[in-house]
Amino acid sequence: MKIAILPGDGIGPEIVAEAVRVLQALGEQFEMETAPVGGAGYEASGHPLPDATLQLAKDADAILFGAVGDWKYDTLERPLRPEQAILGLRKNLNLFANFRPAILYPELAGASTLKPEVVSGLDILIIRELTGDIYFGHPRGVRLAPDGPFKGEREGFDTMRYAETEIRRIAHVAFQAARKRSKRLTSVDKANVLETFQFWKDIVTEVHQEYPDVALDHMYVDNAAMQLVRAPKKFDVIVTGNMFGDILSDAAAMLTGSIGMLPSASLDANNKGLYEPSHGSAPDIAGKGIANPLATILSAAMMLRFSLNKPEQADRIDAAVKSVLARGLRTADIYEAGTTLVGTRAMGDAVVEAL
Amino acid sequence: MKIAILPGDGIGPEIVAEAVRVLQALGEQFEMETAPVGGAGYEASGHPLPDATLQLAKDADAILFGAVGDWKYDTLERPLRPEQAILGLRKNLNLFANFRPAILYPELAGASTLKPEVVSGLDILIIRELTGDIYFGHPRGVRLAPDGPFKGEREGFDTMRYAETEIRRIAHVAFQAARKRSKRLTSVDKANVLETFQFWKDIVTEVHQEYPDVALDHMYVDNAAMQLVRAPKKFDVIVTGNMFGDILSDAAAMLTGSIGMLPSASLDANNKGLYEPSHGSAPDIAGKGIANPLATILSAAMMLRFSLNKPEQADRIDAAVKSVLARGLRTADIYEAGTTLVGTRAMGDAVVEAL
Ligand SMILES: CC(C)[C@H](C(=O)O)[C@@H](O)C(=O)O
Ligand SMILES: CC(C)[C@H](C(=O)O)[C@@H](O)C(=O)O
Repeated sequence: MKIAILPGDGIGPEIVAEAVRVLQALGEQFEMETAPVGGAGYEASGHPLPDATLQLAKDADAILFGAVGDWKYDTLERPLRPEQAILGLRKNLNLFANFRPAILYPELAGASTLKPEVVSGLDILIIRELTGDIYFGHPRGVRLAPDGPFKGEREGFDTMRYAETEIRRIAHVAFQAARKRSKRLTSVDKANVLETFQFWKDIVTEVHQEYPDVALDHMYVDNAAMQLVRAPKKFDVIVTGNMFGDILSDAAAMLTGSIGMLPSASLDANNKGLYEPSHGSAPDIAGKGIANPLATILSAAMMLRFSLNKPEQADRIDAAVKSVLARGLRTADIYEAGTTLVGTRAMGDAVVEAL
Repeated sequence: MKIAILPGDGIGPEIVAEAVRVLQALGEQFEMETAPVGGAGYEASGHPLPDATLQLAKDADAILFGAVGDWKYDTLERPLRPEQAILGLRKNLNLFANFRPAILYPELAGASTLKPEVVSGLDILIIRELTGDIYFGHPRGVRLAPDGPFKGEREGFDTMRYAETEIRRIAHVAFQAARKRSKRLTSVDKANVLETFQFWKDIVTEVHQEYPDVALDHMYVDNAAMQLVRAPKKFDVIVTGNMFGDILSDAAAMLTGSIGMLPSASLDANNKGLYEPSHGSAPDIAGKGIANPLATILSAAMMLRFSLNKPEQADRIDAAVKSVLARGLRTADIYEAGTTLVGTRAMGDAVVEAL
């Protein structure tokens, strides 16, 4: 089985290195090949997603991705900026189903900015559609307004679009995921204002007929943002579009206070996937050896489970991470008085040892 | 001076009645005229925003609005649903600047789901553009996809648009508001993905040149959603578009845990405005006399300050509300052990008395 390793920028190389060591420690035969992406891709060959990197990603069975971005690329024009790499990978590989769990580890309950009783035991799964919506909709650009009250004036514009197939397939993914959990699914929309999301709601409601055992409810995105703050444990599985999912999944991740712990998976229709930590490239701490590698290590576990059909190995990694937390080891982002502060490498060592 | 009173649905009539009593207790001469809106408008004349109601709103110097919506209208087609009234008022009256403060009253610090140290003293002002963006952009609808991977298939679509004038005018409003506070403004966008918001960012940056005394920073909407949970007190004034503002202002309001306390103002270019509580119509508790009227009473205070040029009277109301809180009076939504539970009417009485 072939894994494409795309470390990217900032802390990406450091945290991916630890996840690779963990994978190697499993005693399986993985073929791993590394390629530059994001700012590193731009440095290497003038484009954030070099052709060779894209080809490697296409040929692999799964992709382990670090993070991309650094302030030094802020002045590049948009098509050359690091984040275009991740958008390009999603679109080119049809990775339409993004799984973002927001889980609060009992050992890290204190890290949350929310009161313990509000978040203890939190375990939400946000399923975000990842290849449609206003992220990729055309037409878009800057033009002279063709109509409306500002006709003839310069305007920026984008198109939000969701086709029936796109909604159906993410709805199926979400109902199936809900079926494996508490059988409750919340579809988040803005059907009271947007035609796209009235259509979304209608199609999700249709697909629901095939999953009578799953309880479906619909919630407006503004209300969902409120309820995540007010009573997050009332949610189990949430499904939503690309734009709303971007916002809500980050808010949900931050409820845990330990975004350095949260993995993510982006899957195509055949369970091929890209796996990355939910946090970013943190250029401010890059190269210091202090970043938390656990989200990336847990992303590797998701990869074993979803794409490489090795659920027992995934369980081993999850258990190893739990045990290092139980031992009190903490990187700086999750450190509290009374625990043991360790760096990136030492945290990786501890997980390898626990395996 | 003429005030249009639009109580609306659910708890709207009850809470607006208390705000009207408070206005009457000020000893000023206001002409007040009431009209049905939302579900009440639909019942009265078949449309959520009856012509006579719109005309009254146009003729008035300011509008005091309760809330609209009730599940019983969920099955109506969209143009007839209660929330169309509020969208219609915003658009027809050009109420482009929405002010939504998120303030945590010291007396209510315990109501927040966030830890006291994270939110104590919270005082954020979110300025949301209210008449543009994907809320009103055309074209929109359901059609057969004209191009793209799902060409020929049914799709829902909407258009996000912002013209230069629209961005400039809300930016001026925001810089001026920031100047009166801590001189810090955060503009929230998604310039890394959306053309509309790259354009937004460019124009806000241009307008900034006229306000060199205000510090401006730019933040992506997903990051803003995270930072509101992680460290909300780092924000002072936030300016953003209609869609992002809808989500972020509700999240910010919920950080206080006491959304029943939060007023809002929606202004046109001449400071004519519509004033409404940030919470909704709460049909589940309508008619029970238990709703919190304070957000509406504080909205009346904002009206006196922004539209009616009576800042001393606004201050009197604010002080009266603070004093009833200090006396320990609480409606059910903000009740805690050791305080005194009161209903809608008794809370209104207490404010009137404190005046
Ligand atoms: C970097 C950016 C384009 C990306 C997105 O908006 O999808 C990021 O925020 C994410 O959630 O993966
Ligand atoms: C009722 C709805 C159309 C409205 C909006 O989305 O603007 C509401 O959520 C608000 O924020 O005032």
